[in-house]
Amino acid sequence: MRTLEKIKKANDIRNLRPSEYEALAEQIRAFLIEHVSRTGGHLASNLGVVELTMALHLFLDFPKDKLIWDVGHQCYVHKILTGRAQGFDSLRKYGGMSGFPKRRESNTDLFDSGHSSNSISEACGLVRARELAGGREKVVAVIGDGALTGGLAYEGLNNAGQLKSNLILVLNDNEMSIAKNVGGMASYLGKIRTSNRYEGLKDDVANTLEKIPLFGEKLVRQIRRSKASLKQLMIPGMFFEEMNITYVGPIDGHNIQQMYEAFLAASRKSGPVLVHVITKKGKGYDCAEHDPGQFHGVDAFDVETGKSINGKQGDTYTDIFAAAMNELAVKYRNVVAITAAMPDGTGLSEFKTNYPRRFFDVGIAEEHAVSFAAGLAAGGLHPVFAVYSTFLQRAYDQILHDVCLNRFPVTFAIDRAGIVGSDGETHQGIFDISYLTHIPGLVVMAPKNAAELKEMLEFCVTCAEPTALRYPRGEAGNALLQYRTPIKRGECEWIWREGEVLVLAVGSMVETAEQAAMLLALSEIRTALVNVRFLAPVDGQMLLAALSYRFVVTLEENVARGGFGESVGAYLLAHGYRGEFLSVSLPDQFIEHGSQAELRKVYGLTAEGIAEKIKEKWENKWDRKQAGRKPEDG
Amino acid sequence: MRTLEKIKKANDIRNLRPSEYEALAEQIRAFLIEHVSRTGGHLASNLGVVELTMALHLFLDFPKDKLIWDVGHQCYVHKILTGRAQGFDSLRKYGGMSGFPKRRESNTDLFDSGHSSNSISEACGLVRARELAGGREKVVAVIGDGALTGGLAYEGLNNAGQLKSNLILVLNDNEMSIAKNVGGMASYLGKIRTSNRYEGLKDDVANTLEKIPLFGEKLVRQIRRSKASLKQLMIPGMFFEEMNITYVGPIDGHNIQQMYEAFLAASRKSGPVLVHVITKKGKGYDCAEHDPGQFHGVDAFDVETGKSINGKQGDTYTDIFAAAMNELAVKYRNVVAITAAMPDGTGLSEFKTNYPRRFFDVGIAEEHAVSFAAGLAAGGLHPVFAVYSTFLQRAYDQILHDVCLNRFPVTFAIDRAGIVGSDGETHQGIFDISYLTHIPGLVVMAPKNAAELKEMLEFCVTCAEPTALRYPRGEAGNALLQYRTPIKRGECEWIWREGEVLVLAVGSMVETAEQAAMLLALSEIRTALVNVRFLAPVDGQMLLAALSYRFVVTLEENVARGGFGESVGAYLLAHGYRGEFLSVSLPDQFIEHGSQAELRKVYGLTAEGIAEKIKEKWENKWDRKQAGRKPEDG
Repeated sequence: MRTLEKIKKANDIRNLRPSEYEALAEQIRAFLIEHVSRTGGHLASNLGVVELTMALHLFLDFPKDKLIWDVGHQCYVHKILTGRAQGFDSLRKYGGMSGFPKRRESNTDLFDSGHSSNSISEACGLVRARELAGGREKVVAVIGDGALTGGLAYEGLNNAGQLKSNLILVLNDNEMSIAKNVGGMASYLGKIRTSNRYEGLKDDVANTLEKIPLFGEKLVRQIRRSKASLKQLMIPGMFFEEMNITYVGPIDGHNIQQMYEAFLAASRKSGPVLVHVITKKGKGYDCAEHDPGQFHGVDAFDVETGKSINGKQGDTYTDIFAAAMNELAVKYRNVVAITAAMPDGTGLSEFKTNYPRRFFDVGIAEEHAVSFAAGLAAGGLHPVFAVYSTFLQRAYDQILHDVCLNRFPVTFAIDRAGIVGSDGETHQGIFDISYLTHIPGLVVMAPKNAAELKEMLEFCVTCAEPTALRYPRGEAGNALLQYRTPIKRGECEWIWREGEVLVLAVGSMVETAEQAAMLLALSEIRTALVNVRFLAPVDGQMLLAALSYRFVVTLEENVARGGFGESVGAYLLAHGYRGEFLSVSLPDQFIEHGSQAELRKVYGLTAEGIAEKIKEKWENKWDRKQAGRKPEDG
Repeated sequence: MRTLEKIKKANDIRNLRPSEYEALAEQIRAFLIEHVSRTGGHLASNLGVVELTMALHLFLDFPKDKLIWDVGHQCYVHKILTGRAQGFDSLRKYGGMSGFPKRRESNTDLFDSGHSSNSISEACGLVRARELAGGREKVVAVIGDGALTGGLAYEGLNNAGQLKSNLILVLNDNEMSIAKNVGGMASYLGKIRTSNRYEGLKDDVANTLEKIPLFGEKLVRQIRRSKASLKQLMIPGMFFEEMNITYVGPIDGHNIQQMYEAFLAASRKSGPVLVHVITKKGKGYDCAEHDPGQFHGVDAFDVETGKSINGKQGDTYTDIFAAAMNELAVKYRNVVAITAAMPDGTGLSEFKTNYPRRFFDVGIAEEHAVSFAAGLAAGGLHPVFAVYSTFLQRAYDQILHDVCLNRFPVTFAIDRAGIVGSDGETHQGIFDISYLTHIPGLVVMAPKNAAELKEMLEFCVTCAEPTALRYPRGEAGNALLQYRTPIKRGECEWIWREGEVLVLAVGSMVETAEQAAMLLALSEIRTALVNVRFLAPVDGQMLLAALSYRFVVTLEENVARGGFGESVGAYLLAHGYRGEFLSVSLPDQFIEHGSQAELRKVYGLTAEGIAEKIKEKWENKWDRKQAGRKPEDG
């Protein structure tokens, strides 16, 4: 690892001799495979951008120059080249290095990020700030062809087209987002790739136009007929040129010299330039090249075989959802499924295979997914949009305006609700109760275990109203299976009615609450337990019944503000409840990366943590009310 | 009005003779001008689409065929042609006809709408549903060039490009959204308009290509140099063609025959077709043609002069914001301003004139506006994004992920917070407290009057954190001017501390609370009053102090769920408060159109309504506690 060891901080790569570049690239790849196979993380995308990142680091002077990574999961090489190689031992671990750009780690990370398609907009901001300050630093944004399917990226291009000073947009085109890329833009980029692979722009134009006289009118007719129309051949990148953005490419994304020269040429233009770079996801590691989707984000794996080291765990909620969708598809012919570029992650792959005409992958375009669902529903279908909690928030307005205002029967199947773990701040699903339950007309649910997820999903696809179903990442719960009250709109499920303390638990917290109740029983605190089921509308009978308990506790994996607990607390107080109240939730802050178990422990969402909090408050109540004496039956 | 009187229901226009079309168009224009001059409403856009709407209604068979209006403010002619002419007497009035498409009004209105850029996505949904059902109905979406600057429209195009069956997208190009349109797309459409005005597609291509041999190589070099590059001339609409969408146009949007033929030709294509139609906003009414921005949405006006009938009212909150921005721009050189296509509505026109380099109109692209603001802030500036409450919700994810996670000093100046009135459901600003205050790190404020708005805005632009400032539509309050406690982060303002009832009022509700207090004093109920000021973080000292009152009331113009009242109620209960609690807010539902005053009365947000509620609860409390007796001092 001699060459890699010369990289101690940003810009060190600029001291290498060009003859050392190949060795460095090789060593970086070996380093990535070795480390990620142990820690898990994003692999294929990072293997794909080794040379691209090196070329950018040769071209830029940090921290003066500004480099933005769209999404940011492909920043590992950038982290290595800015002196953070040691951090990979603790990658994505609690207290360790993040798998995404983080401003607190380095002044070469400009934005904490994790969501898609915003880099062009942010880059426009940096360029405008530079213009006002009269600066001369370079601004570069790297965006994948997947992220380019997001509307925000187009809004960015539309505004970048107005810039008069230089901005370099690097389109990292690997024909994928996480899955194979889709849509008109993807097919357009495909045409550029096949027709002009690795050739310069200028010659293309000249050659093509010069040939035209030989064809004449006949050609013109052909143009209108032919599918892969000839106009594509004339000037690649017309799409971008039409938006006032100079197009350069396509360029071999594994040729450092070519990319460096393209960046240099691009930086001499006044105005925005898009450099189209073709890379191969997983490059240099056979297993990842062969199945880049599988190696997008991985757990620890065996380098030889590419197989996950941890044996297959039990079924996840995603697995349960996947199986249920296949069954419901048979039973209800109007059910269709939508994903925003994540057929595997959301569990829709099998549905896609079985019902290709009823399955829609819209690309990284959550807003479109929701408005499209409204259209499908207006056409008489029942769409299920399977999506992660953190990404659904990108379509808040469309949920409210397009679906709920119109009362369309659309189902949001919200995976990764609650703490998700090692992806950290940008991926935790800890806001959906807050951003969904105030939307008028939206029925919001959470299942206590695997069986209930299935039943609730059937409730959803047969419901005439908009419905949302939130369930967590990881192994599906199988506790409390004996409790199977049929799902009825707006009705909770009583697990136990007897007790001084009434615990209202949301979703997977029901199981945790059951465990906490066992612990509390040891302290002779008896706990009544409700499986809330419906976060909206909340069960009015349940709330009325709660008024007669002496201590009401709410449990949810969501921030406190706007959460379930707040709505219960305010209701109880307004309706004359005068007992104790405790809302257990996550604090009102972003939650860092770490394993789900660690984070639940840190934030007191384990059975032990919850039992402790309840006990403390219960005892304080008696301390306060009875000047320190224990309750008489205690 | 003979011809217009023949239109009693949908499809009636198809029974007219072509010779009657001109008369009908003329009569519709006269009808619109006469009615909107009395009721107020959207005028210029509707005058612009008279012939377009007629051509669509001649082409389509309702309700079988499906027609979607993007945004929907341009649906007046459609309403007339579907038999709703009488409704214009009550247009936008409480209980009267809506100014936007409404499903409850007609089965030819497919989506209740009011927000922008979603029509292509919805149309894709209808097409996919048709394909699965094996139907043959036509699906048409009409979208303006303004709405095309929204990223959601691009996501729609990207997915429309995959369709194999017919979809007609009508691009209604009037070179404007509400203000003059901006961005790379606008300049692109401009080039099409100037180069190929009103000519057929096929001839263009042929002519242009045939001419090429005369120029040869020299031409090629010229292409690369020239600004209005020749490639634009070859095939207009290349941008759309690159996305696999057939382009037809540009077509004269005031020539019914030409449009009808274009629609017919488009409907014969398999797959998506975009018909580019050029219209003139305000067409046929001099005042509106001359100043279409002014006549986008209007109050009642004099038809002769075009002047508003209601005299100039006092300064609005928007006026106060506008003046404050100009002052702050002088004092703080790092302050810049952003609008999403609404420089006039948000009060930034003067700032734009005075500080053109520090002003950015990004088009209808709220997501970009927010991510762009993050970039500006990363570059050392303090951006103020002036935006309506209902439109800011389109950028929920970017506020959370791009701005707040990164703790950037960006200010959201949120106009039209609370009830906005006659635009109805889609425009009420009644969700922002719910969707903003749970975002970690965002400081959220509301001023009690005009003076405080100004002071708070200065606080915002000098604050190192993300800040949001919400203020209502309409005349700025000037009550309680003697109360001017300096603005301090997270601190409320106590108006009166004495009283049995403590009222915590948000923003403009402070003035209403003062009036309610006067009414309550007549019933010998003394009211303490707090101007909440900070919705996040809420003043902890204030909450502690509230614990010692016997009755706490919260007042806000927002839905209840996720609102300020809930957070206070839950806090009080969890901290041992055992008095009465009342949260006054809007109910958890969409709020229809009507004047602000009417709606406040209907929903009990007037001084009288609030005093009544407080009195009732206060007396019930004594009824309950003292078995019907009045309080001893009563």
